[in-house]
Amino acid sequence: MIKKGLVYIYTGDGKGKTTAAVGQIIRALGHNLKICYISFHKDPKKWGYGELDILRKLGVDIFCFAKEHPHFCKGISFKGLRNECKKALDFIEKEIFKKDYDLLVLDEINIALRDGYIKENKLLDLLNSKPKSLSLILTGRGMIDKIIEKADLVSEIKKIKHPFDRGLKGRRGIEF
Amino acid sequence: MIKKGLVYIYTGDGKGKTTAAVGQIIRALGHNLKICYISFHKDPKKWGYGELDILRKLGVDIFCFAKEHPHFCKGISFKGLRNECKKALDFIEKEIFKKDYDLLVLDEINIALRDGYIKENKLLDLLNSKPKSLSLILTGRGMIDKIIEKADLVSEIKKIKHPFDRGLKGRRGIEF
Repeated sequence: MIKKGLVYIYTGDGKGKTTAAVGQIIRALGHNLKICYISFHKDPKKWGYGELDILRKLGVDIFCFAKEHPHFCKGISFKGLRNECKKALDFIEKEIFKKDYDLLVLDEINIALRDGYIKENKLLDLLNSKPKSLSLILTGRGMIDKIIEKADLVSEIKKIKHPFDRGLKGRRGIEF
Repeated sequence: MIKKGLVYIYTGDGKGKTTAAVGQIIRALGHNLKICYISFHKDPKKWGYGELDILRKLGVDIFCFAKEHPHFCKGISFKGLRNECKKALDFIEKEIFKKDYDLLVLDEINIALRDGYIKENKLLDLLNSKPKSLSLILTGRGMIDKIIEKADLVSEIKKIKHPFDRGLKGRRGIEF
């Protein structure tokens, strides 16, 4: 059992943030840790993320909030997404923090923060109120300095080269 | 099935290179791809990497070469490691490339390259001779420019903050 939980951030414009979090989940599962994964702005039904079914089968609890994002879904309401994100934070505080998870992944939460669906002070409150033994992983590009200050580990994943740049499309089994 | 395999590199001094590769394996498994993982300079018996048992159970073929590295094991022979790495490259070319894998991860191979156990032109030959449909993931800090040129995707994982810097030790379920 991990004694004191740390806060980990994977940010930056390169590929590897979510997969680094998923890899860390697998590593933690190998040591029988109890894990919860919560995503923001991802719709598994629409995109068919290959990893989620496997994580579920391995015993990871999975929840998806604010599944849409204006980048992929024009005309979606700001207020609706903000409410969805508020629901997510309430759920984490009232339900998830009460259970004895060792690791909680908040995938793409940085996007919700960057785009104003989650306010900075609300996320800071969440980090301050987490159970001591719980480790957190936050992913998504554009993480802000105040959250970085609170974190124990921050990796910036920089894009040096990406196949999208030469017009290649997202590949099944690699991008989703 | 992925049609044309791409070459992916995770390099840089930050945490997340191996876990990004492991996450990508999980994603690919979710689409029923066939995967082989080969590590360099990692001794699972010594370090107990949590992810390997789970990957094995999920059907990933796993091989570990040149398990030691002078950084952790003083007095180990350069020649011995070079021979081990040569064996690995031969094995990949003669055995792995003959099987119908969709994805081959060469974890920490960049270290073997950086430290001279694998010569640049040998790795370039390997990349040139891979089956067309096979995707490759190469991880490890310090990837050299000539290999980066050959790759389709390169992410540099930069350390912004790491708990080791304030004296915290590697954590079970997180670092290994």
